[in-house]
Amino acid sequence: MGVAVIGASMTKFGQRDVWIRELLSQAGEECLTDAGVAPDDVEHLYVSNMASGEFEGQTGIMNLLAHDLGVLPAYSERVDQTSSSGGAGIYEAWQSVASGASEMTLLVGGEKMTHKTTGQATDIIASITHPDEYKHGVTLPSFAGMTARHYLERFDAPRESLARVAVKNHRNGVDNPKAQFQKEITMEKALESPIIADPLRLYDFCPITDGSAALMFTTEERAKEITDEYALVSGIGGATDTHVVHERDDPTIMGGVVESSKQAYEMAGLGPNDLDVAELHDMFTILEFLQLEGIGVADQGTAWEMAMDGATAKDGELPINTSGGLKSKGHPLGASGVAQGVEIYEQLVGEAGPRQVEADTALACNVGGFGNCVITTIMEAAE
Amino acid sequence: MGVAVIGASMTKFGQRDVWIRELLSQAGEECLTDAGVAPDDVEHLYVSNMASGEFEGQTGIMNLLAHDLGVLPAYSERVDQTSSSGGAGIYEAWQSVASGASEMTLLVGGEKMTHKTTGQATDIIASITHPDEYKHGVTLPSFAGMTARHYLERFDAPRESLARVAVKNHRNGVDNPKAQFQKEITMEKALESPIIADPLRLYDFCPITDGSAALMFTTEERAKEITDEYALVSGIGGATDTHVVHERDDPTIMGGVVESSKQAYEMAGLGPNDLDVAELHDMFTILEFLQLEGIGVADQGTAWEMAMDGATAKDGELPINTSGGLKSKGHPLGASGVAQGVEIYEQLVGEAGPRQVEADTALACNVGGFGNCVITTIMEAAE
Repeated sequence: MGVAVIGASMTKFGQRDVWIRELLSQAGEECLTDAGVAPDDVEHLYVSNMASGEFEGQTGIMNLLAHDLGVLPAYSERVDQTSSSGGAGIYEAWQSVASGASEMTLLVGGEKMTHKTTGQATDIIASITHPDEYKHGVTLPSFAGMTARHYLERFDAPRESLARVAVKNHRNGVDNPKAQFQKEITMEKALESPIIADPLRLYDFCPITDGSAALMFTTEERAKEITDEYALVSGIGGATDTHVVHERDDPTIMGGVVESSKQAYEMAGLGPNDLDVAELHDMFTILEFLQLEGIGVADQGTAWEMAMDGATAKDGELPINTSGGLKSKGHPLGASGVAQGVEIYEQLVGEAGPRQVEADTALACNVGGFGNCVITTIMEAAE
Repeated sequence: MGVAVIGASMTKFGQRDVWIRELLSQAGEECLTDAGVAPDDVEHLYVSNMASGEFEGQTGIMNLLAHDLGVLPAYSERVDQTSSSGGAGIYEAWQSVASGASEMTLLVGGEKMTHKTTGQATDIIASITHPDEYKHGVTLPSFAGMTARHYLERFDAPRESLARVAVKNHRNGVDNPKAQFQKEITMEKALESPIIADPLRLYDFCPITDGSAALMFTTEERAKEITDEYALVSGIGGATDTHVVHERDDPTIMGGVVESSKQAYEMAGLGPNDLDVAELHDMFTILEFLQLEGIGVADQGTAWEMAMDGATAKDGELPINTSGGLKSKGHPLGASGVAQGVEIYEQLVGEAGPRQVEADTALACNVGGFGNCVITTIMEAAE
């Protein structure tokens, strides 16, 4: 059964003075309005969220949101796949419609993080690492530093190539009013920012963010009745890589990205050359390279050249992260994968405003942990 | 597409000296063996768990389990619906197969709780209540006490009827080697145990428990190739009730039970009279009455008579909680709904040992919060 996306919304990402409850409600309500769907029509509600219990002592948030949105007695559930919870929510929403369990599914992803110190937030996130690595003090930024060092040396890539990712995504974020940072940065600023995990510096990392995003899914048949402008989820796949990161054969190959994108391409009957625009999970700049290679757009060890050539810029061959990416838009864990979906949906239905590119086919790749769990989604504009 | 269950397992429930990782692995491995499925054949892995982060600071447990079981690169995800996370996992596993996303789905539910004090565990669980009620100090046991008092007075039911639920479920638990408590209790003991939330006493409550349970799902077609003994998920439904419990019109009607069982009956083309055995979510004895009424087996205010008459005993008209129920089997939050599924599966395929009753059609009702989220599953024996 064809599954369509008929509405999207997101809150302002950044430091917000409201709790998870308000963030989810705001995105959910705006998505109902955007899709033109009454609360009563919602049959399933998925909430993508990693850690509302750890961050603010509130659990059962799917129940809270179902209540606040007035969608009762709709089925409600929380989906967690750490930082790819949003992508996992897209997969669950797709399955709910494709299986016939629901004809109208609302997905809302969100996380409230900034009230914690950076140390506290980093430790909550680090709880996803394998116990055998966690006990050595490993955090996700430290994995990123080691991987970046290896990549640059092995493939003889210039340090500047990573900074170009940050500069590009900050440039794109200027045009996104929902982004946490709407400001350009210079190469000089990126290259001279404080070292966090050598060789990575402050501007190689996404910020800690509060925010929420939402998407409305229905059958293709019902979508046609409701609107002329919708997108189809034509391909989707998910995969898991080793939890112990150092057990991977090649630290520059993200197995979950390779496997999940393979599934998504097969289902859609498409390949990397068919993409017009993509959102990649640039939690760290190095990840944009690894994902470009993982989804088959670039050969191993060559994605850095695309950054140097401008091929991934908004006016390049394949615009990457027109939303500003996690780098400038921000990364509220459970919201990020949904927000990627919001961006590619808006690109496909022509609602991306100043960020608009010409696109009939778009891909989003959402990464949990350090490539531990990955969801790849392909959407196409309705004909 | 017909969805079948072809294997089941559960660990010993109780106070366990291992962490969530080991509990999940043990149930998962035993389920692979029971189903005769190689790790490589698993395509989706769902982990039902409410709060591993809050209980032991370990998140990303779906990734950890996928790694430990050797099912990589299978898709893995954590499903949370508080104490109905297990039922939600059954729903997701069903959707994954019914949508064609997966041909072989392993569901493992688990929780590790007993290393916390009762106060700490109760507070983690109370984090699922609505903020407007939580701030008044409400916990789930206090809701149960108020509801039981109302039920007994309004329907002129004897206090003994609640104790009979406890005595029956403890009796059933004697025959379940995986149960936390394998001991009978007397009516006298139940009625004279310490008051917890008047009129409910110690033996009206399920214990705090560590444990894990697992089920293997596949298509009906594939099930036939693998085994002669399988069960079909012929009906399933899920629903959400108000998060603010005091906003419900009638405290004795569990709206989520009514709605989810209605969906499940419709899908299966069955009704309450077709059931041969059922597992109900007896976190508190009063809930067994409310669910018997919610699923349509008894009229409102009359389920207590079934307890007094012995109609719900193992040799009664409709055996309820042959496993011992949450009351004697224990209630490791994320595992409980899966363990209900394990019991009805074993009853349907004739593997329930000393607990065996004659059954072709079985129902499981898993309740999150105080009836906040409910999943009802109907399974039938393969013909």
